[in-house]
Amino acid sequence: MTTFVDRLHQAIQTKNTPALVGLDPRWDQLPEELKKTASGQGGTLDCIHARAYEAFCSRIIDVVAPLVPAVKPQSAFFEACGPAGVEALRNVIKAARNAGLIVICDAKRGDIGSTAQAYAAAYLAGEDPDAAPFAADCLTVNPYMGVDTLQPFVDRAQQVGAGIYVLVRTSNPGARDFQDRETDSTKLFENVADRVEELSLDLADGSDYGSIGAVVGATYPKELSELRQRMPHVPLLIPGYGSQGGTAADVASAFDANGLGAIVNSSRGIIFGFRSGKLAEEYGEAKWEAGIEAATKLMIEDLAAR
Amino acid sequence: MTTFVDRLHQAIQTKNTPALVGLDPRWDQLPEELKKTASGQGGTLDCIHARAYEAFCSRIIDVVAPLVPAVKPQSAFFEACGPAGVEALRNVIKAARNAGLIVICDAKRGDIGSTAQAYAAAYLAGEDPDAAPFAADCLTVNPYMGVDTLQPFVDRAQQVGAGIYVLVRTSNPGARDFQDRETDSTKLFENVADRVEELSLDLADGSDYGSIGAVVGATYPKELSELRQRMPHVPLLIPGYGSQGGTAADVASAFDANGLGAIVNSSRGIIFGFRSGKLAEEYGEAKWEAGIEAATKLMIEDLAAR
Repeated sequence: MTTFVDRLHQAIQTKNTPALVGLDPRWDQLPEELKKTASGQGGTLDCIHARAYEAFCSRIIDVVAPLVPAVKPQSAFFEACGPAGVEALRNVIKAARNAGLIVICDAKRGDIGSTAQAYAAAYLAGEDPDAAPFAADCLTVNPYMGVDTLQPFVDRAQQVGAGIYVLVRTSNPGARDFQDRETDSTKLFENVADRVEELSLDLADGSDYGSIGAVVGATYPKELSELRQRMPHVPLLIPGYGSQGGTAADVASAFDANGLGAIVNSSRGIIFGFRSGKLAEEYGEAKWEAGIEAATKLMIEDLAAR
Repeated sequence: MTTFVDRLHQAIQTKNTPALVGLDPRWDQLPEELKKTASGQGGTLDCIHARAYEAFCSRIIDVVAPLVPAVKPQSAFFEACGPAGVEALRNVIKAARNAGLIVICDAKRGDIGSTAQAYAAAYLAGEDPDAAPFAADCLTVNPYMGVDTLQPFVDRAQQVGAGIYVLVRTSNPGARDFQDRETDSTKLFENVADRVEELSLDLADGSDYGSIGAVVGATYPKELSELRQRMPHVPLLIPGYGSQGGTAADVASAFDANGLGAIVNSSRGIIFGFRSGKLAEEYGEAKWEAGIEAATKLMIEDLAAR
């Protein structure tokens, strides 16, 4: 069995970029063409939205699969369409796997004991696409409840060759509220980072990285750089690049000498890139897939020049 | 529009108990009768489990609806059955509402900005059962990412007459890992509590309680008592009673002079109560519904004698 982090790093090397495309479908911003087709097939509003989200994400997957190693569907937008949306999420995860992409399900789950086990069983399939109903390679997890609530996810990851990214330093302005609280010269997020490093070191089993990762926002570049040092065996997932303001320079410190150890996410900037700036002029809605391809290539170039 | 906390308190006064029944279906522990029926109808394993979970929860709802004010379905167990499970969750929420119960969806969601909005839209229906695909009255929410990530849930709660319970002090042993970290004589969970009090006071608008609640475990009775004082306008959701070791004496301090301000959850102790101790002897699997009824009445009596 190949571990999650090894599969991820192979994919990063094959595609020669750490760019991660976030799949955050929003009805208001979908191409009219897709909204029309989905509406024409009838059903409840939730079903129509779910159908459009699945079509939109599937076409994005076709565009980006040759270019990037991984995609990150955001569960919230699918859940907002009810059971039909959740079925669309499952299908999007499947489609991405079938296209050879690593799938990180962004659902930020977390709970105690056997409840955490249920979440892990729901989302962590690892290498075997039939090992979980939502067959992701990796899941984002919230640490607030404590290390014993991370353990069931770690166990499952180890068992099936999956991974998790634990929220350490998020990209939003309010990240400071609780994560920056300092106790004996150590901030909460640093304390969480230390525990994540322990978990990942244990799974690394002599390798450079384990499959227990950390979410660290590009919007706090100083902390990102420090956390890279603090968690040498932890692969990073970096949100906040692009629309949220993070730049290629901001994330440069996250990578090791081989260009590994981190992936950088862009969601809106890629999937709705055709709606703003130069890409809107050049492609616009009429050529939205070409616009997404161009946005992805721009991100890849930008990151390569870091 | 009646606020969530007012509807909850009316229900507590009508049923004359703050007992909350947690719906945590686990395949291994379901009555054989239900497993057999669900299996007989065929389909994938996920579909069979989902069908059995829905039948089990629906029958629990029929038993407990005359006795308690509210139920708390645990989303994880439903998600573990994939889209079919999530559809069962939606139906269980509907069935509970139709039976006149307040529904607290235990999904511990949390994310930034518009993603949090999507979660709030997915789960918070408030008074109108058609206002959300998963039409709960209330949702549990994780605060790690910061107060700006709670705000979209607060806004939605205010808008539709729904509520949230923010994780403050959880009931698991590992709760101490991060929640107990002390900064300037204030622990993290106390800091979170202060922010939750501010949010709920704002929504209370002159009333005794607002609709922004807090999860505080019965397994830490000293902290529970202190948190009750620290968050005077915050309704509490108390897990950890029963199977996890919390007693009626442990939760006594959570209530105001009118017996309001808190609800106490029991999941396994109620819904699988027929599998252990005296209830197993008296009812067992053959009379599992009567066993659940008896377990519920025992909890109600126990809490009444606090």
